[in-house]
Amino acid sequence: MTDLPTLHDVIAARKIVYRYLRPTPLHHYPTLSELVGAEVYIKHENHQPVGAFKVRGGLVLAASLTPEQRAGGLFTASTGNHGQSIAYAARAHGIRATIAVPEGANPGKVAAMRALGAEVIFHGDDFDTAREWIMEIAAQRGGMFVGPTDEVLIHGVGTYALEILEDLPDVDVIIVPVGAGSGVCATSIVAKSINPDIKVIGVQSAQAPAMQRSWKSGKLVSAEMHTFAEGIATRVPFENTQRIMGRYLDDFVLVDDSEIKKAIVTLLEHTHNLAEGAGAAPLAAALHLKKRLAGRKVALVMSGGNLSVEKLKNFLQEEQQI
Amino acid sequence: MTDLPTLHDVIAARKIVYRYLRPTPLHHYPTLSELVGAEVYIKHENHQPVGAFKVRGGLVLAASLTPEQRAGGLFTASTGNHGQSIAYAARAHGIRATIAVPEGANPGKVAAMRALGAEVIFHGDDFDTAREWIMEIAAQRGGMFVGPTDEVLIHGVGTYALEILEDLPDVDVIIVPVGAGSGVCATSIVAKSINPDIKVIGVQSAQAPAMQRSWKSGKLVSAEMHTFAEGIATRVPFENTQRIMGRYLDDFVLVDDSEIKKAIVTLLEHTHNLAEGAGAAPLAAALHLKKRLAGRKVALVMSGGNLSVEKLKNFLQEEQQI
Repeated sequence: MTDLPTLHDVIAARKIVYRYLRPTPLHHYPTLSELVGAEVYIKHENHQPVGAFKVRGGLVLAASLTPEQRAGGLFTASTGNHGQSIAYAARAHGIRATIAVPEGANPGKVAAMRALGAEVIFHGDDFDTAREWIMEIAAQRGGMFVGPTDEVLIHGVGTYALEILEDLPDVDVIIVPVGAGSGVCATSIVAKSINPDIKVIGVQSAQAPAMQRSWKSGKLVSAEMHTFAEGIATRVPFENTQRIMGRYLDDFVLVDDSEIKKAIVTLLEHTHNLAEGAGAAPLAAALHLKKRLAGRKVALVMSGGNLSVEKLKNFLQEEQQI
Repeated sequence: MTDLPTLHDVIAARKIVYRYLRPTPLHHYPTLSELVGAEVYIKHENHQPVGAFKVRGGLVLAASLTPEQRAGGLFTASTGNHGQSIAYAARAHGIRATIAVPEGANPGKVAAMRALGAEVIFHGDDFDTAREWIMEIAAQRGGMFVGPTDEVLIHGVGTYALEILEDLPDVDVIIVPVGAGSGVCATSIVAKSINPDIKVIGVQSAQAPAMQRSWKSGKLVSAEMHTFAEGIATRVPFENTQRIMGRYLDDFVLVDDSEIKKAIVTLLEHTHNLAEGAGAAPLAAALHLKKRLAGRKVALVMSGGNLSVEKLKNFLQEEQQI
């Protein structure tokens, strides 16, 4: 068992991240605050160049490579945002990127990866199948496989959590969507290291609860996975992020896909930002937890905004019918 | 005739602006670039706390007040974004704000102004009627009326143009939506002072062409006004911004409301950002000017994102039918 990532790792990663990116805003929304009954802030990771927080991790990982690793190129599997992050970071560092995506992956995310110069290969029905396959390809070609929870990624991702604490030092609660877990782990490490009283709460869809069930039970358990929100669609839990979550996380709630869809529309209305499912899940969770959050300062991590127009159109129509 | 604002005024305004705001991103979008046939960048003023660029100006204006002016409070008229900017700046400085809006003003913008603590009063059918009325109220109550093109506002607004040039020093063309003209004037002053070769192009809706016709003819001419895009809906042109535009602006194009609606959907699809009509008009203009822009580095100012969900829903449905 290796040591867990620390606040120091995150602070060291900042220099690299800020070579390429600026801090994202943490905005206070009065009308959203009325709705939740708390002082609500949104951390706008959807404002990142590839529309999601993961780019922070990719840049730190790419900067950490040896010349040999650079020459071999990066290989990964992704449902979209992690792949875009690796593609973006690889291009910034002049490295080749090869990304396996499951059949039926979000077409906008695939187009974006290709436009960033990555080779994108469709393989298998879900993330885990694509991942196993591309790991073999990487080994055959002498390249480096990057998993979505590699520790160096967590170091980079933690920089958004530091920004939250700098902009709102007296934040009471941070709610983070959980896919593979890099965001929630990075946030927990940073928040708890600076002030153990800050509560960090994870959220996942009830239609893909593997990470939540694993955390609750303390065992690695797979689960059904049929959420529309690919950013939090995890079938097989990740061991290293579960370990960190076991130590640091305060709570982990499930919300229904229907609540996430509604939160996407609410966020569009009150913040004029487009959130993807993962990015809207924290608001759905906050509405669940109204009693506990009453009057507190709550930061919701809008982890990404890469929702297809087609899906948005459907959600807007569904909301109308309710 | 007073002197025109200068680059020096804008540089002096930065210190004030950055007390409250961070620079907004200028993102490059590969898929959007393919569509336009140029290297397309978006300046994301829709990422500002009140969802529009104007907040930069409001903050500088509020900081410039004497104690007497602060005590008397700020009065203005607005279709939305200017009012939100004044409300935000007034709250940041502990000043009372009273804002007249025309009947039928964007409800989201009105709610946001009220949530920021401003008193909002509906009066008259359009901006100009509301403006004349609130000017009288301000005089009666001993308060200060702030017009949407006051020079101090232009100083603050210019900070976004400086950011464009810092992030992309070799930008060839900047396309800016024109309402009252503070954005396009500030951009022209900054761009031309730094590099006269940079082309600055204004855009307005063909359904509200008063500013464009005035610029073309060199005379102040009013015009019809029935665009859906309230941010660029000007019926009576503004003298002081026309004077600046007459000196600095390279071109000023009109696009149809239908093209702006289409651009909103295209931007949502390719950037996952919600633009209001004004914020999408520069993309509509770029698609008009494809031949002239071919291969150039083009910055499109997404001036704001405050579009109602209701309007977006309609535009998405209209696009589907085409």
